[in-house]
Amino acid sequence: MKTYLITGCAGFIGSNLVDFLLNKKCKIIGLDNLSTGNKFFLKKALKNKNFKFIKIDLFKNNIEKYFKNVDRVYHLAANADVRFGLNHRKKDINQNIIVTYKVLESIKKNKVKKIIFSSTGSVYGETKQIPTSEIANFPIQTSLYGASKVSAEAIISAYCEAYNIKSYIFRFVSILGERYTHGHVFDFVKKLKTNKNFLKVLGDGNQKKSYLHVSDCLKAIDKAITNCNQKINIINLGTQEYLKVKDSVSIISKCLKLKPKVIYLGGKRGWIGDNSFIYLDTKKIRSIGWKPKFNITESIKITTNYLMKNSWLLDRKN
Amino acid sequence: MKTYLITGCAGFIGSNLVDFLLNKKCKIIGLDNLSTGNKFFLKKALKNKNFKFIKIDLFKNNIEKYFKNVDRVYHLAANADVRFGLNHRKKDINQNIIVTYKVLESIKKNKVKKIIFSSTGSVYGETKQIPTSEIANFPIQTSLYGASKVSAEAIISAYCEAYNIKSYIFRFVSILGERYTHGHVFDFVKKLKTNKNFLKVLGDGNQKKSYLHVSDCLKAIDKAITNCNQKINIINLGTQEYLKVKDSVSIISKCLKLKPKVIYLGGKRGWIGDNSFIYLDTKKIRSIGWKPKFNITESIKITTNYLMKNSWLLDRKN
Repeated sequence: MKTYLITGCAGFIGSNLVDFLLNKKCKIIGLDNLSTGNKFFLKKALKNKNFKFIKIDLFKNNIEKYFKNVDRVYHLAANADVRFGLNHRKKDINQNIIVTYKVLESIKKNKVKKIIFSSTGSVYGETKQIPTSEIANFPIQTSLYGASKVSAEAIISAYCEAYNIKSYIFRFVSILGERYTHGHVFDFVKKLKTNKNFLKVLGDGNQKKSYLHVSDCLKAIDKAITNCNQKINIINLGTQEYLKVKDSVSIISKCLKLKPKVIYLGGKRGWIGDNSFIYLDTKKIRSIGWKPKFNITESIKITTNYLMKNSWLLDRKN
Repeated sequence: MKTYLITGCAGFIGSNLVDFLLNKKCKIIGLDNLSTGNKFFLKKALKNKNFKFIKIDLFKNNIEKYFKNVDRVYHLAANADVRFGLNHRKKDINQNIIVTYKVLESIKKNKVKKIIFSSTGSVYGETKQIPTSEIANFPIQTSLYGASKVSAEAIISAYCEAYNIKSYIFRFVSILGERYTHGHVFDFVKKLKTNKNFLKVLGDGNQKKSYLHVSDCLKAIDKAITNCNQKINIINLGTQEYLKVKDSVSIISKCLKLKPKVIYLGGKRGWIGDNSFIYLDTKKIRSIGWKPKFNITESIKITTNYLMKNSWLLDRKN
């Protein structure tokens, strides 16, 4: 039985991955500091004898020993707060760059053969190539979050080149679905739960965004690992559509059976470093036979309903 | 009188920059930990009342106070040892990424308006676009040194975007000239000084490399700062030629009046992460009226003669 290590195992994507992989019969070692992740998401997994959870801060602690006899590392732990990245700059540097370096050192020293890494479409910055393919022009970074992911990708490549490690770097659009806890849809649902009649939206509402359901994301990752065999595999993940922020607002409002007055605060970007248009070219992942089950509208509805059924998530402080 | 801060001021390029700028009448604050830099290179500068030298480790110490009332920062300090990057991986992470982050924090907090950064053609990794323009495809990194420079560039861009700082990021080919202390030419001259009859060369000798004389490099930087006015200016620096490593060997041997037996150790790359072909497209810098005075052959000759006249540099341990 194979052993996989997952960093950020209690997070939104991480905990879904834990369940997904446990279904495939393997042993999972899950690391998480529970800063944004939640042990509640691991409720089912914790009952499985093949799952071992370790609460640990990857930045502060020695993590090498957990990588012993591991077949694959899924490195998902990150500070994923794009919007407030500028308020805690050191967090992006430490959690996204230094932790990735520490994970790679642990991989190297324990001779782990594969690393799977969750990167982001934000690495393309303000690219002019839309839809954006994996080999788009070398971009100028607009957010510290994007910059930290570019750094992590680059360091992973260098380690793979030197130490015969295989890497799968996935550049995600925004992921939606069960256990989703931050981003546009979360913010809108949360605000509408507090005030049904009124919604303030950052930007002019015309920012174009792409979304993918977490179950489609996990299937894509799995398919890529089976089918792509370069030393360094960089793969965009998303659907073949995009949506304006104002359309998300409509879908969510309809789903909640509300007709709020929507105020757009103006500007092409929601915040400094926000990308006004994210739409990834996904030919590469589709060429190996993957296609998403859910479209964007369905994903937003599923997510909205999930959040309303688990409204304690909306009430959490962090 | 303007005040400029230079990190890595006692290094090869840094010390030449100090002299170059002092000639233009400005105040210079120079920081260096003297790990690879040398106070000998600042001999002339230290006699100038407009130059203030501070020996400091940028990684370990608080550096913010030195950035007060500074008009521009030239951030040249780095671990520039590409070849042995894998032997001290933490050094690349700390000296090239974390120090850049610390410099940017100091710039932000002291409201400095401009940062000039020495990056490298190595960021293009194994690009297929040759000559390589600034907007080449997003590359896969092959060396940890290149990866650390990609990271630094990305973090600089994100800070510029957020805090209205202007940046000039120069992607250099190998720089040659007076005070040059590491790289191909240094290694060959050093070896030939020890053994006149025999030279071992890494790789098959067919790796194609570009070089630029340090005086041409400094003039280009100066011209770009005056003429380029984007928020983030990314500019390649190099000559419109390249040379095979075996040709460098011939030029150096001729210059030293030696006819050594040359043994090529084989392989397309000199070491893991070595780029077998670096040749940058320099249309952008030439479009603002810059052109180099020295060609590659002249630069190699000047450097070889300098090293033989200052042979204590060849005998140093680090």
